[in-house]
Amino acid sequence: MTDADDPLAEFRARFALPEGVIYLDGNSLGALPVATPARLAATVSDEWGKGLIGSWNDAEWVTAPQRIGDKIAPLVGAGPGEVIACDSTSVNLFKVLTAALSLNPSRGTILSEAGNFPTDVYMMQGIEALSGGRVRARLVEPDAVEAALDDEVGVLLLTQVHYKTGRMRDIARTTALAHERGALVAWDLSHSAGALPVDPTAARADFAVACGYKYLNGGPGAPAWLYVAQRHQERVTPALSGWFGHAAPFDFIDEYRPAPGIARFLCGTPPVLGLVALECGVDLLLEADMAAIRAKSVALGELFASRIEPLCQRHGFVLASPADPAERGSQIAYAHPEGYAIMQALIARGVIGDFRSPDILRFGLTPLYLRFADVDRAVEILAEIMATRTWDRAEFKVRAAVT
Amino acid sequence: MTDADDPLAEFRARFALPEGVIYLDGNSLGALPVATPARLAATVSDEWGKGLIGSWNDAEWVTAPQRIGDKIAPLVGAGPGEVIACDSTSVNLFKVLTAALSLNPSRGTILSEAGNFPTDVYMMQGIEALSGGRVRARLVEPDAVEAALDDEVGVLLLTQVHYKTGRMRDIARTTALAHERGALVAWDLSHSAGALPVDPTAARADFAVACGYKYLNGGPGAPAWLYVAQRHQERVTPALSGWFGHAAPFDFIDEYRPAPGIARFLCGTPPVLGLVALECGVDLLLEADMAAIRAKSVALGELFASRIEPLCQRHGFVLASPADPAERGSQIAYAHPEGYAIMQALIARGVIGDFRSPDILRFGLTPLYLRFADVDRAVEILAEIMATRTWDRAEFKVRAAVT
Repeated sequence: MTDADDPLAEFRARFALPEGVIYLDGNSLGALPVATPARLAATVSDEWGKGLIGSWNDAEWVTAPQRIGDKIAPLVGAGPGEVIACDSTSVNLFKVLTAALSLNPSRGTILSEAGNFPTDVYMMQGIEALSGGRVRARLVEPDAVEAALDDEVGVLLLTQVHYKTGRMRDIARTTALAHERGALVAWDLSHSAGALPVDPTAARADFAVACGYKYLNGGPGAPAWLYVAQRHQERVTPALSGWFGHAAPFDFIDEYRPAPGIARFLCGTPPVLGLVALECGVDLLLEADMAAIRAKSVALGELFASRIEPLCQRHGFVLASPADPAERGSQIAYAHPEGYAIMQALIARGVIGDFRSPDILRFGLTPLYLRFADVDRAVEILAEIMATRTWDRAEFKVRAAVT
Repeated sequence: MTDADDPLAEFRARFALPEGVIYLDGNSLGALPVATPARLAATVSDEWGKGLIGSWNDAEWVTAPQRIGDKIAPLVGAGPGEVIACDSTSVNLFKVLTAALSLNPSRGTILSEAGNFPTDVYMMQGIEALSGGRVRARLVEPDAVEAALDDEVGVLLLTQVHYKTGRMRDIARTTALAHERGALVAWDLSHSAGALPVDPTAARADFAVACGYKYLNGGPGAPAWLYVAQRHQERVTPALSGWFGHAAPFDFIDEYRPAPGIARFLCGTPPVLGLVALECGVDLLLEADMAAIRAKSVALGELFASRIEPLCQRHGFVLASPADPAERGSQIAYAHPEGYAIMQALIARGVIGDFRSPDILRFGLTPLYLRFADVDRAVEILAEIMATRTWDRAEFKVRAAVT
């Protein structure tokens, strides 16, 4: 595939990308859709400013979490009423992990892999601390997960595509194995939703969570979402039992009674501005074909890998992602001892990827707005930086708060 | 006080209020500050669109929760580093209630009043259900709260200004009494913050939460905030232990270690768009004097009460708020058996208050943008509606999802 025969080429114009930038960090913060500013301005000035409180009904704010959830659902292979947009990924992890434990009450272990995305691990540890000894948060090495599925594991929490390496797990196979061993499974799809076909329903997965600000292009700190398989929904009484998850929130009664279906996983008042921006990103993604997105993602990754190969040999970059594109998400990572400074030098030249501790240069490949020519040029610039040792300047070695 | 000698009169022009509307619902959703649309547009188009991932540092997104918390602090009598803007009120209730219980481990009861705002009560009930018998959520009648402070109560959760009646509790007295009886206290300040002087620090209150979308004018579903007294912060390990509350989130290590101070009460990635809109509302409020806000609020309430008095006698409205303005927040409520239809008829005439089940008409008095002339006119319109029985039409009796 080249830019000339890229079936997704037209999508680039639907994003407001700055001049002179090659953006390889859409897996951290997705780019701004052209449609978003006007939609958000209308929500603020017309719906909030003029419609005031009436917009909860008139502008359909009150049903936005369900409406956007139903739009996300086909992007991730879920059915209607199985996804809802709300809170942060972290808060949603708490919801699905406590829900899973309640459905599997004879087992108290939450199992995950060491080096999973930190918030997944930290939320497990918070539940353990809160439980007063009933819950155990257990981490094992990535390759040891399957062997660790013993009869104490109530829920297995895994990320489909690893945030750092891009390594992709097989949802269907792992879920089936966990079920055989009596565990439920919660998937973090933050690095896969919107980047590749995912099908938790077909895989019989129990729960999933993901953020809205990466491949869904929902904006900084966008509302996250969660998936609960239809078969489990009515069996769960949510631990975060806020008023928006109540069966009749505006009856203002004193007894919590969960709403039917997925709505019970709402908690507080929905964040309207964030939801509106998220919806713009999701609407745009719905216009694209997910198989085409995956095909281009693989092609971009293969091009990147082949172009960087000479630099690996000459300058010591080591591929930190699986070599087989079938085992990789929509990103590719290389380790280098001077990774931090090299990434800062790239950013100074307009090639924006990111660095992940301790030594990983991570490049996100977002098929909707990245061109093959961008990949070529990014690697050219990297080659120049390495050839001239530009990265070896003090200015590139000072770490910022977020990188 | 009249509009002619109102020291806050100039503030009305700082809000984008629609023509022909008298807005008496700023205690449900505050009005749009004139400054907000441009600030939000710049955040979207410049910071997100052009700055992309770099804006987490360059546009100071990463410290927005602390920065805005420190701006809210003086509005509610808290000190720097005692307030942080994050999540929803409901989620923050979970954080402060579990924190309070952890600080008072020999006591398992969360006490509150029947008829408290539903989400306060529901979050208590969720914690009870999650605890496996260790925590009890107990509701007593409002007047029985003090007598119920027995040696099982670990934390008392009360709302300072009642959402429906506007009845105001004495934070200092109640906190002192609860402390004497060995309980910690968490205050819900949703209906008081920004409307009257509050001082949890002087009252030695332990925790507080509140929303950002009422008197702070932060927009629909704005991020909420929480307060934790300095003396408690380092003693709490948050139950919702997400990565943004970690001491070193970008070290990506496997062990949760809470950040120093108030930042540990963050959980997921901060909702930037919502935070930016909230900051605009808070910045505007910081220009006004809180004592002047309270004085005007009382004057507006007294005017409202005196004007409506003849209607009470003629049409059966019954004051559902304390008659003494010193015992009332910045709202006033009346019960009427046809309350729902009457409120719909008022809204149809441009007088926007709201209805609260089963029979309460609730009128919010927001000193920054409400004029004395508006109160006069609102009661005139109510008198016309009652005189002509306009409310007695089928169209006013159909209930919408949110009212």
